[in-house]
Amino acid sequence: MGHQRDPRSPEQLREAGHAAVDWLADLLGRIDELPITAHVEPGAVRAALPDHPPEQPESFAQVLEDLDGIIVPGLTHWQHPGWFAFFPGNSSPPSVLGELLSAGLGVQGMSWATSPAATELESLVLDWLVELLGLPRTWRVDTGPGGGVILGTASEATHTSLVVAREQARARDAPTDDLVVYASVEAHSSVQKGARVAGFHHVRLLATTPDGGLDPAALAAAIAVDRAQGLVPTALVSCVGTTGRGALDPLDQLVPIARSEGLWHHVDAAWAGTMWICPELRHHTEVLGSVDSWVTNPHKYLFTNVDCTAFWVADRRPLLDAMSITPSYLRNETTDRDDVIDYRDWHVGLGRRFRSLKLWLVLRMFGAEQMRTILREHVRLARDLADRIEQHAGLELMGPSHWPLVCFRAVAGDDRTRAIAAAVNASESLAVTVAEDVDGHPYVRVSIGQANTGQADVDRLWAAITAA
Amino acid sequence: MGHQRDPRSPEQLREAGHAAVDWLADLLGRIDELPITAHVEPGAVRAALPDHPPEQPESFAQVLEDLDGIIVPGLTHWQHPGWFAFFPGNSSPPSVLGELLSAGLGVQGMSWATSPAATELESLVLDWLVELLGLPRTWRVDTGPGGGVILGTASEATHTSLVVAREQARARDAPTDDLVVYASVEAHSSVQKGARVAGFHHVRLLATTPDGGLDPAALAAAIAVDRAQGLVPTALVSCVGTTGRGALDPLDQLVPIARSEGLWHHVDAAWAGTMWICPELRHHTEVLGSVDSWVTNPHKYLFTNVDCTAFWVADRRPLLDAMSITPSYLRNETTDRDDVIDYRDWHVGLGRRFRSLKLWLVLRMFGAEQMRTILREHVRLARDLADRIEQHAGLELMGPSHWPLVCFRAVAGDDRTRAIAAAVNASESLAVTVAEDVDGHPYVRVSIGQANTGQADVDRLWAAITAA
Repeated sequence: MGHQRDPRSPEQLREAGHAAVDWLADLLGRIDELPITAHVEPGAVRAALPDHPPEQPESFAQVLEDLDGIIVPGLTHWQHPGWFAFFPGNSSPPSVLGELLSAGLGVQGMSWATSPAATELESLVLDWLVELLGLPRTWRVDTGPGGGVILGTASEATHTSLVVAREQARARDAPTDDLVVYASVEAHSSVQKGARVAGFHHVRLLATTPDGGLDPAALAAAIAVDRAQGLVPTALVSCVGTTGRGALDPLDQLVPIARSEGLWHHVDAAWAGTMWICPELRHHTEVLGSVDSWVTNPHKYLFTNVDCTAFWVADRRPLLDAMSITPSYLRNETTDRDDVIDYRDWHVGLGRRFRSLKLWLVLRMFGAEQMRTILREHVRLARDLADRIEQHAGLELMGPSHWPLVCFRAVAGDDRTRAIAAAVNASESLAVTVAEDVDGHPYVRVSIGQANTGQADVDRLWAAITAA
Repeated sequence: MGHQRDPRSPEQLREAGHAAVDWLADLLGRIDELPITAHVEPGAVRAALPDHPPEQPESFAQVLEDLDGIIVPGLTHWQHPGWFAFFPGNSSPPSVLGELLSAGLGVQGMSWATSPAATELESLVLDWLVELLGLPRTWRVDTGPGGGVILGTASEATHTSLVVAREQARARDAPTDDLVVYASVEAHSSVQKGARVAGFHHVRLLATTPDGGLDPAALAAAIAVDRAQGLVPTALVSCVGTTGRGALDPLDQLVPIARSEGLWHHVDAAWAGTMWICPELRHHTEVLGSVDSWVTNPHKYLFTNVDCTAFWVADRRPLLDAMSITPSYLRNETTDRDDVIDYRDWHVGLGRRFRSLKLWLVLRMFGAEQMRTILREHVRLARDLADRIEQHAGLELMGPSHWPLVCFRAVAGDDRTRAIAAAVNASESLAVTVAEDVDGHPYVRVSIGQANTGQADVDRLWAAITAA
């Protein structure tokens, strides 16, 4: 192996860093030639690697060899332009650079005082997003009383929000085991999970209207039944863009119910929310001033690699009441200042990395106009695909979507639907998801939004669908 | 600004990536010349940046200019060799490379199927750590029934563990509001926070013996009182290396109590746990087979940048019971296979980045022997500093520590103690923490462990202490 550098040395970073950048740029330059889905049996990747950790240092060249030979063939490539599965998990060069810089700077922003710029840049970029997404001005940190914070996943945001709702109910002496959370049956699984983790015994997954939005009448009825049984309606999670088929809960009708019933109202816009950078893709913004929290994932469409979730509360006080504990070793001159944010009081974790850096680089190096252009092209591609499906005698579109998600099934039935998806996924250069509707019938779910996906990729997809 | 590259292009990554690597290597090469603590007023960093997001793209050169001019002066440098504050938050070139590769690959490992290698490498490196740290073999994923997972912070691990404890108690029909958690008064604030977030109404922070370890008699007595009042003792969090002064709970005496009382037993080794790569720095390993979960942070001493927390459970079944929900769009061929891990079922979040990559690079590019050598040198430096303090007439050492944490105060009293810390921190090249003991008296807390800290840095620290 020859001479080994001290792995702590900046020169090690310089030397191997250049090699890593070239390796990555080369890989991303030919990612459309790689099989999009890993073809490995469970255990195969692990079996190819040493069972014991090395006693002696190895070189970065050896690491790259194993990346090429073992790791990359075991990955499913979310950055492939043929990625129509789940949701996009877009990375981009600006985001990668931000992650690199964050790791290298190695600061820890648990408190303002432990690295002021980490906190202030986070507040700034989230305030920028408030502006870009058309959210209420009162959610800006600088104008308050609300504010935003970066979390790891939308699931964490929903969980956090439900913890705040629970604490508010308990402050009014409601027994924990009597608290109830409401959402639609098409809400994301993170609602059920977040509610369970937050300790709610009762989660009502309510009926939707045919378009997939939570039925306000069902909500009102469920609340009445629960109250009659002595339970305590506590929180509503409504959804802007359901995972299954991109449905929209009728916030204009839900907000008045949540307000009059005193429910904490969290809005899950994990997927669709970042598309609000385009004004024509926003919905029900007129009632947003009356919800309590809202989440979206820049790590889906917005060119920022996982993990980067943007979570806002309309009023930061209840969140801080639930999450803030300050022992002596974390107290400092600025801890009790109102004009200083200590983000450790905004979430479960304490330590936190400098995640705003990558979002800052994305917003600057793309610029808002270019981001809108890319998203609008994906919306156009989705409408184009939906049109083709609608005109095809053998396929059935599952209702319109407000965003670039296209769901369809075969007229011939479930087996044919599954066969189409299987054929597409067998192509090695396309990936779609099979989901099931509430009655258990499968459908093919095509999410258009990988940063580099273009007309040619959708054409390939269409060719594969019609061939199947 | 001239020609702008498409920010999605691999060539953008190549060009700006090389510039970023050089910028970082240059900065880290002169980090000991930077003021270790940021000297900025609250709001100053933000005020220097544009209040609105850019419509048009900016170049990476412009970003670097702002990093140099605005961001870096606003950071407190955890990678400075004079860093003796809080705990080390070590980054290292191998870790930075791993973070870079993870961001660039941009895969999302929520399920095994969504990128098999991401899951299998995570299991492997955590099994490697089981071996390196001398943990029970049954905690390895491959031999089970336990297993490890990477989380973001130890706080999340403690919270997760307490959620599992709560769910087990509720499965036996205990009312949530009657459940009790026990820990010592010197336990980390994350115990109190995690218990609150998990919905526990009752947290008993119990007395310690003079050496700072949880007093087993106090635990037994508290449990008896709670049972007499009809409450339900549910979980014990014991500590290997308290945050305040590096104390050790007597696990050998606590384990039998927890077992006979049916408590879920979580061990917080967030800080000291990674030092177990040196066998002589381990404690009470003989009873570890009887605890339920254990956490340590490679993102403290172990050269892996924040965030990287390693969390193990002795039996993964109760964790999965608490955290697993599988909607149709997440179900796939391998979801129900026993030999396949879907890490989304191990924590609150769903989406997850490829965090094992950086830990893998660290373990390979350092090698176990070199990591032990560095840690042993830090232990030696801590003992050396403790000796000097002990022999100094004006200073008083606050008991021995098992690990490289040195706590002391001025014999002349609280004001002098605070003055010493203030003088050290005013040096611009050293940082220590002032903490308070349970009686509210301050002491200076010196944590030795920044990856590049050496004898010369400790000598500088000693000179600053004695000068003050």
